[in-house]
Amino acid sequence: MIKVGIIGASGYGAGELLRLLATHDQVEVIALVSSSSENALASDLHPQLTGFYESLCTTKELKRELFSNKNEQSIIFCALPHGASGNYTLSLMRDKNLSHVKIIDLSGDLRLTDKSNAQKWYPETDFITSEREQIVYGLPEINQDKIKTARIVANPGCLASAAILALAPFKISGEVVIDAKTGTSGAGRTPQANFHHPSMHANSFAYKVLEHRHEPEIQQIIAGLNSNNFSTTFVPHVIPASRGIYLTAYFNVLNTNSSELTKIAHDYYKDSQFIKVLDNPPELRSVIGSNFCHFYVKERDGRVVIMLALDNLVKGMAGVAVQNMNLMFGLDEHLGLRSLALGII
Amino acid sequence: MIKVGIIGASGYGAGELLRLLATHDQVEVIALVSSSSENALASDLHPQLTGFYESLCTTKELKRELFSNKNEQSIIFCALPHGASGNYTLSLMRDKNLSHVKIIDLSGDLRLTDKSNAQKWYPETDFITSEREQIVYGLPEINQDKIKTARIVANPGCLASAAILALAPFKISGEVVIDAKTGTSGAGRTPQANFHHPSMHANSFAYKVLEHRHEPEIQQIIAGLNSNNFSTTFVPHVIPASRGIYLTAYFNVLNTNSSELTKIAHDYYKDSQFIKVLDNPPELRSVIGSNFCHFYVKERDGRVVIMLALDNLVKGMAGVAVQNMNLMFGLDEHLGLRSLALGII
Amino acid sequence: MIKVGIIGASGYGAGELLRLLATHDQVEVIALVSSSSENALASDLHPQLTGFYESLCTTKELKRELFSNKNEQSIIFCALPHGASGNYTLSLMRDKNLSHVKIIDLSGDLRLTDKSNAQKWYPETDFITSEREQIVYGLPEINQDKIKTARIVANPGCLASAAILALAPFKISGEVVIDAKTGTSGAGRTPQANFHHPSMHANSFAYKVLEHRHEPEIQQIIAGLNSNNFSTTFVPHVIPASRGIYLTAYFNVLNTNSSELTKIAHDYYKDSQFIKVLDNPPELRSVIGSNFCHFYVKERDGRVVIMLALDNLVKGMAGVAVQNMNLMFGLDEHLGLRSLALGII
Amino acid sequence: MIKVGIIGASGYGAGELLRLLATHDQVEVIALVSSSSENALASDLHPQLTGFYESLCTTKELKRELFSNKNEQSIIFCALPHGASGNYTLSLMRDKNLSHVKIIDLSGDLRLTDKSNAQKWYPETDFITSEREQIVYGLPEINQDKIKTARIVANPGCLASAAILALAPFKISGEVVIDAKTGTSGAGRTPQANFHHPSMHANSFAYKVLEHRHEPEIQQIIAGLNSNNFSTTFVPHVIPASRGIYLTAYFNVLNTNSSELTKIAHDYYKDSQFIKVLDNPPELRSVIGSNFCHFYVKERDGRVVIMLALDNLVKGMAGVAVQNMNLMFGLDEHLGLRSLALGII
Repeated sequence: MIKVGIIGASGYGAGELLRLLATHDQVEVIALVSSSSENALASDLHPQLTGFYESLCTTKELKRELFSNKNEQSIIFCALPHGASGNYTLSLMRDKNLSHVKIIDLSGDLRLTDKSNAQKWYPETDFITSEREQIVYGLPEINQDKIKTARIVANPGCLASAAILALAPFKISGEVVIDAKTGTSGAGRTPQANFHHPSMHANSFAYKVLEHRHEPEIQQIIAGLNSNNFSTTFVPHVIPASRGIYLTAYFNVLNTNSSELTKIAHDYYKDSQFIKVLDNPPELRSVIGSNFCHFYVKERDGRVVIMLALDNLVKGMAGVAVQNMNLMFGLDEHLGLRSLALGII
Repeated sequence: MIKVGIIGASGYGAGELLRLLATHDQVEVIALVSSSSENALASDLHPQLTGFYESLCTTKELKRELFSNKNEQSIIFCALPHGASGNYTLSLMRDKNLSHVKIIDLSGDLRLTDKSNAQKWYPETDFITSEREQIVYGLPEINQDKIKTARIVANPGCLASAAILALAPFKISGEVVIDAKTGTSGAGRTPQANFHHPSMHANSFAYKVLEHRHEPEIQQIIAGLNSNNFSTTFVPHVIPASRGIYLTAYFNVLNTNSSELTKIAHDYYKDSQFIKVLDNPPELRSVIGSNFCHFYVKERDGRVVIMLALDNLVKGMAGVAVQNMNLMFGLDEHLGLRSLALGII
Repeated sequence: MIKVGIIGASGYGAGELLRLLATHDQVEVIALVSSSSENALASDLHPQLTGFYESLCTTKELKRELFSNKNEQSIIFCALPHGASGNYTLSLMRDKNLSHVKIIDLSGDLRLTDKSNAQKWYPETDFITSEREQIVYGLPEINQDKIKTARIVANPGCLASAAILALAPFKISGEVVIDAKTGTSGAGRTPQANFHHPSMHANSFAYKVLEHRHEPEIQQIIAGLNSNNFSTTFVPHVIPASRGIYLTAYFNVLNTNSSELTKIAHDYYKDSQFIKVLDNPPELRSVIGSNFCHFYVKERDGRVVIMLALDNLVKGMAGVAVQNMNLMFGLDEHLGLRSLALGII
Repeated sequence: MIKVGIIGASGYGAGELLRLLATHDQVEVIALVSSSSENALASDLHPQLTGFYESLCTTKELKRELFSNKNEQSIIFCALPHGASGNYTLSLMRDKNLSHVKIIDLSGDLRLTDKSNAQKWYPETDFITSEREQIVYGLPEINQDKIKTARIVANPGCLASAAILALAPFKISGEVVIDAKTGTSGAGRTPQANFHHPSMHANSFAYKVLEHRHEPEIQQIIAGLNSNNFSTTFVPHVIPASRGIYLTAYFNVLNTNSSELTKIAHDYYKDSQFIKVLDNPPELRSVIGSNFCHFYVKERDGRVVIMLALDNLVKGMAGVAVQNMNLMFGLDEHLGLRSLALGII
């Protein structure tokens, strides 16, 4: 059994990890850390966990000795808020007693590899080049080999994952418009006015217009694939659903058509069991609750549009984290991720 | 023009009053008071008011001199949180310079007339019997004559209004079950975990089970009508809508049937233009956004069930406040309240 | 591997069965029958199944020979509409070549055991007493032993399940009010005006008031437990969610209190792993997507209120059908049912 | 009083017209025509109208004699489905006894002015150039003078209105991406699988990708303003709300910035009282239920993004129809349109 610790137990990342790991046969969660909720059961923080993890209580600090046995397989998920999580992960990474422990950081703090870019968007987070080079970007569909041998993984952003999975199969150039629609759970657990139910129930709005931190993340990864002469215009919108990202990307191509583009995507994702290339636009409901991602591409007169749907809390966060963990330990990629989407939701 | 002041400008009560009063030809809002948002436009606090009230800014304190001209008609709506609102209203009520100013208090603080009951449920609020006797309970369908001559009105609770309007036509006895379903806006403007959109979006739960403050309010008013040998069991539930109360009441009758009960209700409400007695169960969507209330009654084997639907922010709060104001000034009851329900919502 | 056939492939019952069975290691679905969609993939009918069951196409008629090998374990789920399903199940039941095949009927057609009652509420369905006596009511928490040895199971109604699970632990008498709130998926897959999204999105309404077919089902089962001097008043309401039943029941007790009632419920359900007795009112979100059912009881002055939450498509339909199947074949009750509720939904 | 007739009484267009006109002092609805619902009250078809129009019943055919008095002001709204509405309007237009009657057609049938384009997208509709030239495109913010003198108005498409209002202030060139998010009521009243509540409740999907009929409408109007060297890429998406369009447009500019673009928009709309240019992205909730439209523009590195929000049933359909009627009769533009947005919804 792999020993698991989770830092940031009260957040949505932790709640969703616990939900998924409860169905994973190869792991045992042995530590839950929450600076705000000491001695709480997992189900006190996340009532959907009622009946699970009943022998486990939160602590304010991680008892590092729980993970100090070098003969055991162990992993720590660091799911603190942006600004705190990266530095916490770095402190674990530097702890020699934990040098055998794998870590997945769910925040954005450690994703950017260009120092000035990283410090612009995540100024709170320590940047030491030699450390940052050891951290692997955890999107399995484009980075599987590196993840398999990584000790430290920076779990990707939900919107960035959606955009990258939409664009990765193609060599793109010129201007790319990325228009994302996301459910409210992307805002995290802390109640705030914009996401108060009475005003959000039938609402929609764009936010962080042209200034969202996932845009440099998208640019970095796409540039590292096969496209480099491109620019992005990224606008995320909130829609009145709880879960889900529905992303539409627009760019230009030469001398190709819908069926050829669909074939390219099929080929690109032929070994990626969680990505399904469809012949019709996806529906959000067909992925919610699951680690699946649905993809569609269509061309007209040289303009390409791609639609991509995924569950931001699963394939966009905790699910891909579990998928990364499975890869890091050489396990079947589907463990803990076998649930299908609810469909009726 | 009637001069209007609103205390508690950032809350839902004030927002809804401003929304309705913007279409009322006989009033001018001259004061908006908010302890938390100084110098704000109404539309800064309530974006649906964009383009309205643009010459008006919030102040931290009420400039009482604005209302001191005894030759002008004026009214102050006190829409502070429970616990604060009642005492504020009492301070205005005691101010001799404002003795000509009418006041409608939207909180629960001043509704209960039995001293021990009032002090149990609203312990923060001053109770002086001689004062409390001057305060009229503002449900026009049962109390219209008193409201017309009142100076101070305690606006009824939204759930209490629904329950009272459901039960008022009948002489009831024995046990009454009152099962209410309410949208989330009843929780008010302050963000809180239970009403954070990601967890509320498809949720429902009962709250304050058998301990909600509207239950003594219901008991007081129903006892004051024509029923006194009854007991109540009241459970409110939140449903994943923003506006609306759908209330179902259950009790026993002797020797009557659905059509007779329907006729009694028709007669009882024949002069109440905002109450519609239907031949089928109401739908919430048919009242949302309006001051209308839809009523239905059915009997089987001596058991009666009543369904009643209204918009908690309009007929349950700001709309009835405007209706009360209209009555207090001898105006057409419909001014500011002419909008029909959205239906498609 | 247990061979599985599903009749009525396009409905929600079938979709949900397929969703759950995709994670069940001991079954293989070998037949999907749909009179309306010939040669369709499961994912054509239910897009959440994309990537699953890809070697299986619907047929218009059941190929009974697929199930005629008496050495194989096999089961047929009959999930046709009410009125059709029961007679189809009876025809399978009477087929001597299928005498070794177990059947679970998901409709209401075969649940009532009193002939006149059955014929009043389900007049289309054949009633032969000797047959009906062989059919077991499939609510595992009250009927587990009979289910284990049953060949034919009548899967319970979703609202009836909720009401029975709420009341079963107690000896009740007198009047019981059962006020249910249900998501729209209970209405089934056929589009209809009342459930058209534009008018249902923020709507709520009561339906089949005092004339719902689950009321005699509740009465029959509760009378068969330990209560017989009681009457019911049952009103179901639709709320603007897709999944979920939140049921509140009200009745009288003598000489007991909340903690004693909670203890009785704990004891009653101590071996029922899918029923969780809580110390606070349940939330719908904590059960949606799972086979769990959350229960709460509170008493005041001799009045008892019980709240119970479950997912109507899982614990109220397909999940309990899978649970019944597991019991009928002596399998671990949790197979196919390990997913936790989404919580954030 | 202006006499009003409405053709297509059961649809959302008629329902919303009736809702708005109930608060309009200068009109009297004297005819409701519905081929599917004879002798129905308006409130039978649209329960939000309960208590209004109670002396009016639907007829299967229009009694044209009701409108034949040439001394009376009268108008007919034709709100039949696409394909039927245009030809019906043309038949009224050709009726010499009705030559004094104004007509507003709410369908798309009569909007396109290029014959081949019109016949491609609306093949069922008669196209006679001399007739089509008399029909005025009814978007008041760009076409007010022509509307004031028009006899026949083609009411604009909801998505087209949103796109045109977003782009009209600017001279645009090059590629324009138009990504629209719309509530489900745009799909009309007929129940259909895609809009069945259980599957739509938390869903989102793109539809008619690159083949929506509003795209040629947008192109026609924008080309007629001040832009002609441009191409569009238009993708509409459904979001799980009932009302509302939130549209984001993307294009390039040279040598300008956000504040200059905002100023251009302010100037362009300075006489358009229903269009509000904001300094922050709009929210859907701030326009729902009203005829207002909220606009925002932002530039970065030569890329422009515009967000625009409106209620598709009001400013996108029935509200703009009433606004057009007011203009056609020389009335105050706001009659019947004074309701503010609900804000909390």
